[in-house]
Amino acid sequence: MADHTMLDKTMRINYLYDFYQSLLTPKQQNYMSLYYLDDYSLGEIAEEFSISRQAVYDNIKRTEAMLEEYEEKLLLLKKFQQRTELLNQLKTFSEKGKVVDDEFLRVIEALEKLE
Amino acid sequence: MADHTMLDKTMRINYLYDFYQSLLTPKQQNYMSLYYLDDYSLGEIAEEFSISRQAVYDNIKRTEAMLEEYEEKLLLLKKFQQRTELLNQLKTFSEKGKVVDDEFLRVIEALEKLE
Repeated sequence: MADHTMLDKTMRINYLYDFYQSLLTPKQQNYMSLYYLDDYSLGEIAEEFSISRQAVYDNIKRTEAMLEEYEEKLLLLKKFQQRTELLNQLKTFSEKGKVVDDEFLRVIEALEKLE
Repeated sequence: MADHTMLDKTMRINYLYDFYQSLLTPKQQNYMSLYYLDDYSLGEIAEEFSISRQAVYDNIKRTEAMLEEYEEKLLLLKKFQQRTELLNQLKTFSEKGKVVDDEFLRVIEALEKLE
């Protein structure tokens, strides 16, 4: 159960990082992508940049808080989730054979790629 | 022609303000909404806040540059325009009578409201 909660939190941070990474500093981007995308440990990142493990930890925690603040203000993840659900509803129209034109799914796929 | 260019620029700033206002300070929000939404002059805003006309002008110019920087990083306006175009394409499916289910337009309208 604890693991499941951890995974959800990691997935959420990964999504938020996807949406807001361009608003972070290069240093924040480095630490976050090593920790969350490349699965480095705090110690490995500390060694890589010749700083303390605590400094890496503090930076990552501050960055996570910033990502949540951006989400509070811009709601990009929340809107993405709502849009995904609506696009899935549109796709069921096609699956039910209710849409004749072949272009239909192509347009929905283009909408999905825009996220 | 000059007027037309002005209008385009004003419309663009209005859109950008819509997308990114939550990232601005309350002071920036005040000046921008008085100037762009309520059509106050620089002099009127200066009087309202007991500061110089130049200070209001500088603040608004800086804010406009910030909005463009956010757009460069997050592309919310560009994606909104692309999404609008794709949603309009989906609506033509309905107008051509190619979609049977009544729920179809309701879902597209929900997608539009999400912007």
